[in-house]
Amino acid sequence: MRDFDETSITDAVLERLSATPDPRMRQVSQALVRHLHAFVREVEPSFEEWQAAIGFLTRTGQMCDDKRQEFILLSDTLGVSMLVDAINHRLPEGATPTTVLGPFYVENAPELPLGAEVAQAMKGERLHVSGQVKSAGGGPIAGAVVDIWHSDEDGFYDVQRPAEAEASLRARFRTDAEGRFHFWTLLPTSYPVPDDGPVGDLLRATGRHPMRPAHVHFMIAAPGHETLVTHVFVAGDPYLDSDAVFGVKQALIAEFPRAPEGHRVLAYDFALKSLG
Amino acid sequence: MRDFDETSITDAVLERLSATPDPRMRQVSQALVRHLHAFVREVEPSFEEWQAAIGFLTRTGQMCDDKRQEFILLSDTLGVSMLVDAINHRLPEGATPTTVLGPFYVENAPELPLGAEVAQAMKGERLHVSGQVKSAGGGPIAGAVVDIWHSDEDGFYDVQRPAEAEASLRARFRTDAEGRFHFWTLLPTSYPVPDDGPVGDLLRATGRHPMRPAHVHFMIAAPGHETLVTHVFVAGDPYLDSDAVFGVKQALIAEFPRAPEGHRVLAYDFALKSLG
Ligand SMILES: [Fe+2]
Ligand SMILES: [Fe+2]
Repeated sequence: MRDFDETSITDAVLERLSATPDPRMRQVSQALVRHLHAFVREVEPSFEEWQAAIGFLTRTGQMCDDKRQEFILLSDTLGVSMLVDAINHRLPEGATPTTVLGPFYVENAPELPLGAEVAQAMKGERLHVSGQVKSAGGGPIAGAVVDIWHSDEDGFYDVQRPAEAEASLRARFRTDAEGRFHFWTLLPTSYPVPDDGPVGDLLRATGRHPMRPAHVHFMIAAPGHETLVTHVFVAGDPYLDSDAVFGVKQALIAEFPRAPEGHRVLAYDFALKSLG
Repeated sequence: MRDFDETSITDAVLERLSATPDPRMRQVSQALVRHLHAFVREVEPSFEEWQAAIGFLTRTGQMCDDKRQEFILLSDTLGVSMLVDAINHRLPEGATPTTVLGPFYVENAPELPLGAEVAQAMKGERLHVSGQVKSAGGGPIAGAVVDIWHSDEDGFYDVQRPAEAEASLRARFRTDAEGRFHFWTLLPTSYPVPDDGPVGDLLRATGRHPMRPAHVHFMIAAPGHETLVTHVFVAGDPYLDSDAVFGVKQALIAEFPRAPEGHRVLAYDFALKSLG
């Protein structure tokens, strides 16, 4: 087949991909071509706009290193990460909703005893966190691993502070016989996603701010259950309705009231989806 | 708006983009989100597949440098470049069809007198090229700038040969008073697009070869006319029906017959679209 025109070229490319040996690869690559060509046909980019798109994608890849993943940030800010999350977590009634992992998770954070303080040297309002881990529609889960991480009062994670050699505002706990955990930390604050790269340029060009509402990240794993990746958001945060990565769900917003002793308190229970 | 699900998240992102100040930026970014989300909803990627896509895009950006543009190669091999070309070149009857620029164009190639040899030190079958540049539906164009470039008998362009300090198989000519040009060079050969990067991985995963049928590139510019970017392909090449970048058009295929003196001959005329 020769002499493709602006409509028949799509069929020519689909035909070429029809020999893809792996059926899933064939399905995904053909769907990509259909949707990508439909996008191009709809917007009719000029040659200069096409060059600008090539340049944007190139800069996005070149912004990535072992501490920065600009393509994940692009996926996050276009709502794609939350869409993929939703597709992969069709949850039963009663299970805690999921949200994005985000770029600041670190594997193998230090495991601390229940009641420990995770913010020795950091500044901010003291916060006591406690909760219970249950099976959705079932009982408490003893020995569940609860990974937590969040930003400091300046909006930075430990990995964004070059001087921070040790994990801070980051730890793992194991639930007790009743599925409970508790620890001391600091009240997190809202913070901007990194906006000094191509994604920041795109946010500015589309009139958007880079802020995320204040939250504590949780990753909770237990045998026989789907690992839960979520946040708990601070009620009243001004960015709850305009999270740069579309991560907020109503059920994940909690009050962080002040205790008579002066510190803030979060009490939040989690329900994990059973496997099989 | 909170509590997006797999369908309503698209509206939430579109709503967020509705404040984009520039109307064209708003149109393009909203169309991107609609098509990208539709693709994701259709293929329902697993988290691991989404991670693989992020990794692929990251490697593609990181493969780019001042001599290699892997995202253009991706656009080429998915038929997007030819689609953009078609959209931007809706030509009048009689005008020479366009095709992709390709990655090996170099600005300001040396201007040589008509009849010059462009392949002093290179090996291959000698080729004489001649033609006339006309206005589509009009007369000959004197003083048109004819940029030409092509691969050597091993399938490499000069810029792919680190030892090649000077331009070879690459030059500019000016048409004479009758719009004619002619020069000596070597017969080009079919060649693979660079396939040692992520795009090569994608071609292999989809059961495709990386070959382009043999061709001579032409870029022809003249006042009052749309600059013509095209190739002339060698009739009989085994890859004419499976060009890795979908660049072949029937009207761009020409015979390169052997002259009685033993060299090959290309005689091909070009017709440029008038502006306004
Ligand atoms: Fe976060
Ligand atoms: Fe070429």
